[in-house]
Amino acid sequence: MKIFTFDTTLRDGTQGEAVSFSVEDKIVIAQKLDELGIDYIEGGWPGSNPRDKEFFARAREVQFKHAKLTAFGSTRFARNRVDQDPNVRQLLEAGTPACSIFGKSWDLHTQRALGITEEENLVLIGETVKYLTDHGKEVVYDAEHFFDGYTSDPSFALRTLEAAKNAGASVLCLCDTNGGTLTGRLVEILAVVRQRFDGIIGIHCHNDSDVAVANTIAAVEAGVTHVQGCFNGYGERCGNANMASVLPNLEIKLGHTTIGPERLASITSVARFIAELANLSVRNDQPYVGRSAFAHKGGVHVSAVLKDSATYEHIRPDLVGNRQRVLLSDLSGRSNILYKLKQHGLIDRLDDAAHRELLERIKHMEFMGYELEAAEGTFELLVREALHPGTNLFEVVSYETATKGSAKQESQTVATVTLKAQDGIHSATATGHGPVNALDLCLRQCLSQLYPEISNVRLTDYKVRVLDSKKGSAAKVRVLVEWSDHKRSWATVGVSDNVITASWHALLDAIKLELMRMMEKDETIARVVEDYCWGV
Amino acid sequence: MKIFTFDTTLRDGTQGEAVSFSVEDKIVIAQKLDELGIDYIEGGWPGSNPRDKEFFARAREVQFKHAKLTAFGSTRFARNRVDQDPNVRQLLEAGTPACSIFGKSWDLHTQRALGITEEENLVLIGETVKYLTDHGKEVVYDAEHFFDGYTSDPSFALRTLEAAKNAGASVLCLCDTNGGTLTGRLVEILAVVRQRFDGIIGIHCHNDSDVAVANTIAAVEAGVTHVQGCFNGYGERCGNANMASVLPNLEIKLGHTTIGPERLASITSVARFIAELANLSVRNDQPYVGRSAFAHKGGVHVSAVLKDSATYEHIRPDLVGNRQRVLLSDLSGRSNILYKLKQHGLIDRLDDAAHRELLERIKHMEFMGYELEAAEGTFELLVREALHPGTNLFEVVSYETATKGSAKQESQTVATVTLKAQDGIHSATATGHGPVNALDLCLRQCLSQLYPEISNVRLTDYKVRVLDSKKGSAAKVRVLVEWSDHKRSWATVGVSDNVITASWHALLDAIKLELMRMMEKDETIARVVEDYCWGV
Repeated sequence: MKIFTFDTTLRDGTQGEAVSFSVEDKIVIAQKLDELGIDYIEGGWPGSNPRDKEFFARAREVQFKHAKLTAFGSTRFARNRVDQDPNVRQLLEAGTPACSIFGKSWDLHTQRALGITEEENLVLIGETVKYLTDHGKEVVYDAEHFFDGYTSDPSFALRTLEAAKNAGASVLCLCDTNGGTLTGRLVEILAVVRQRFDGIIGIHCHNDSDVAVANTIAAVEAGVTHVQGCFNGYGERCGNANMASVLPNLEIKLGHTTIGPERLASITSVARFIAELANLSVRNDQPYVGRSAFAHKGGVHVSAVLKDSATYEHIRPDLVGNRQRVLLSDLSGRSNILYKLKQHGLIDRLDDAAHRELLERIKHMEFMGYELEAAEGTFELLVREALHPGTNLFEVVSYETATKGSAKQESQTVATVTLKAQDGIHSATATGHGPVNALDLCLRQCLSQLYPEISNVRLTDYKVRVLDSKKGSAAKVRVLVEWSDHKRSWATVGVSDNVITASWHALLDAIKLELMRMMEKDETIARVVEDYCWGV
Repeated sequence: MKIFTFDTTLRDGTQGEAVSFSVEDKIVIAQKLDELGIDYIEGGWPGSNPRDKEFFARAREVQFKHAKLTAFGSTRFARNRVDQDPNVRQLLEAGTPACSIFGKSWDLHTQRALGITEEENLVLIGETVKYLTDHGKEVVYDAEHFFDGYTSDPSFALRTLEAAKNAGASVLCLCDTNGGTLTGRLVEILAVVRQRFDGIIGIHCHNDSDVAVANTIAAVEAGVTHVQGCFNGYGERCGNANMASVLPNLEIKLGHTTIGPERLASITSVARFIAELANLSVRNDQPYVGRSAFAHKGGVHVSAVLKDSATYEHIRPDLVGNRQRVLLSDLSGRSNILYKLKQHGLIDRLDDAAHRELLERIKHMEFMGYELEAAEGTFELLVREALHPGTNLFEVVSYETATKGSAKQESQTVATVTLKAQDGIHSATATGHGPVNALDLCLRQCLSQLYPEISNVRLTDYKVRVLDSKKGSAAKVRVLVEWSDHKRSWATVGVSDNVITASWHALLDAIKLELMRMMEKDETIARVVEDYCWGV
């Protein structure tokens, strides 16, 4: 059955504490959601803040292929005439084909938040919906707090739906705004609504009880045909139902049609893209699209999965554009890494000494606190160095970096690096925005003569984590640097009790890897590394 | 109704990609879970790795007040006699009152993973359960992949349960090992099992379809009385049902008895404690226990919540030891922060100029990319400085830090700081483990004469995040430093395009705050800050 999809990442999603998008981000995300085949994209609340208003102004220039852009707002204020309500007016001005408006279904809210009678509330709902439909808008009516409202006063809650329906709303969307309703109760109430109303019923769940996705799925099983949610479960407090989980569940598990199987295969990349613009990471353990969603760590699981992946995977990862990973850990041993190398015939290319040394190096790095699973770049370099034991790109003679600041002057960072390469000693000094930038500049300057084709791989993220926090500011830290060449991205890692040293090692690995890749375009290595670590 | 709780954070939880505990950590967590009133604590798989074996050896010296420590293992290997199976032997040697063993319910696994017939599998199950009960163990039988197994061959799946039951298992726990079963289907299958078997049925869900908590709750509504899960939803791939969500749902929403309402009020602190030992943070948006679980950002929500918190909160946050927060953002404006100050009478203590300056400083910091919600220390300092505009603790004249390294020598970091205080100029030079440590040492050295009581507040975490990744290694970064005085913890923040400068600002704020707190023990300020930002 066709289930309509309504994405509110750009509206309810931005109510999440950590989530913030620029207008530009919002435009790009809306286009991405359109390509993905989402039916309605709720872009914001034009009456609530200037950023959302600007978004709708700019969105008029965008041609959406499939999605209906939707502006969000509330029923008119009690004291305003509907045609003079600023909030309603801005809904019209947003110029979207559809509007979603929320109204009160809960007597507590009608009395406490609005301070009006129940009858007055029904008038607000009816008038606002009618005014918008009269002006050619498709109206999605969001029944705020429907389940709490129903529990408090069933007949009033149902009458609010009636008011919206009679005024021409095309969807009656039941919202569990506080996220407090458990699945059993939700389904009970839905059965009553389904019996009373034909047409499209929608569902909008929050995750405060950790059941938002399950509630959304159960609602569809109970006859709902319009689902609302946010990518990566963003949203107020604990977030909204996660679209990146709802869609695969509906398509793969229940056989409904949402965005179709072809587009579903890009849902992992869309989830990651949106997270990147939010400046957040997709949670590793996020269902379907997370990096760990098909990652196997336990020894029993690993050995079974290698025999038949259906034994420990609930779906084929490629259906959602994700992939299987097998992890190193003391539970499964470093045999996994070797297994991967063997599988691609790389072990046979190592002589005994190189093989032994590779093992020793991996062992030592694990002991030091490196995590190779998260650092595909550092792992790739290890493998490349093992395969080409003679390669000596350059040696570091010395490096230093100093930062000075004073009351009168902005701080300044200088670095000096001296390297020994095949053609002699190179030194460079550079000022930079902080030590990583300054050292990076020095390294590239030193190497540019010998390797003029050295490209400017871009640093995209820099993360520092304390490994043993008991030691205070003397604790060991792990620095993870993410790099991109605009086609793919990878990470390198450094560990030290000194954040500068750790950063330096990560930087050095990135530069060495760039050079190794330039010199030996070995596709097998790229495949093994990708297979093992999976760059974005 | 009493629902038995079975926590597997220490076993299934450690299969999560990012989760790793030392033996010491595991002992401390087990004690914490015992205090919380958990009924069964699964401590590990002694037959699978030396760390878990050592854990059980050390756990013998621990007196548990309530919980039954449980060792995990599998049914005997097909080729071994049960009394000679090393895995079964190690279960006995673990010396725990209870054992959980998993057996195969899915014909696919019996054939593909074990390579034995279905009849042989029934013998393995029966013999292993009987051998353990004969040796005085309480046996929890984990029916691995029960729901997939039932779907593939219902009669075989049910016969495996029969084999375990007849051999004396006290709990038949149905596992959705791959996490692929949706709630509707799970409840259908449970109804059949419930009809066939009396006694205690258990449930063990994974979160691959994002419905693990809902499935666990639905299972209880269908007659299950033993629930398994991990704190913070740790576990293989996408994790297990989150205990910190399951328990509040069962107790508060459904009125069952698990750990009781008094202990439930410490569940937030237990979740955070376990996360800290895992070296992870509790996700901000984690239901019930996350920092954002009762945080309000949208303007409409904020104003309603201030009138009546039931309007947008599904439970009273103190029932789970959490609390309400009201957030700053462009959606609700900086009025929230002022509201808090007003509420506690602090605004009245500010003169007009101080009031204006505080506003300006907050505005400027937001513009720069500071996030005050996450940095209670920096916010507290702002307020304290506004209240005491004359206070001039010290001025920074200059600071510098340099790191040098070479091929032959480990890198070394030196810092020099010069301050002007009331009693003149102070300079100090120190070497340290990295720049933050070295600068910290210098600052404390400079101030120790004037403020001998300056305490050694401990750095507990140090996080760096790139704010505008488009600029590569010249990007602006935000440094968040977490501090603790062993009683409470707080964070300070610095933003700059130079990681050293950003760290320096965060460090400086921490030191200033320490001094301000020493000088003015104003409990009102502490309450406002706590109220607004909520330190751990």
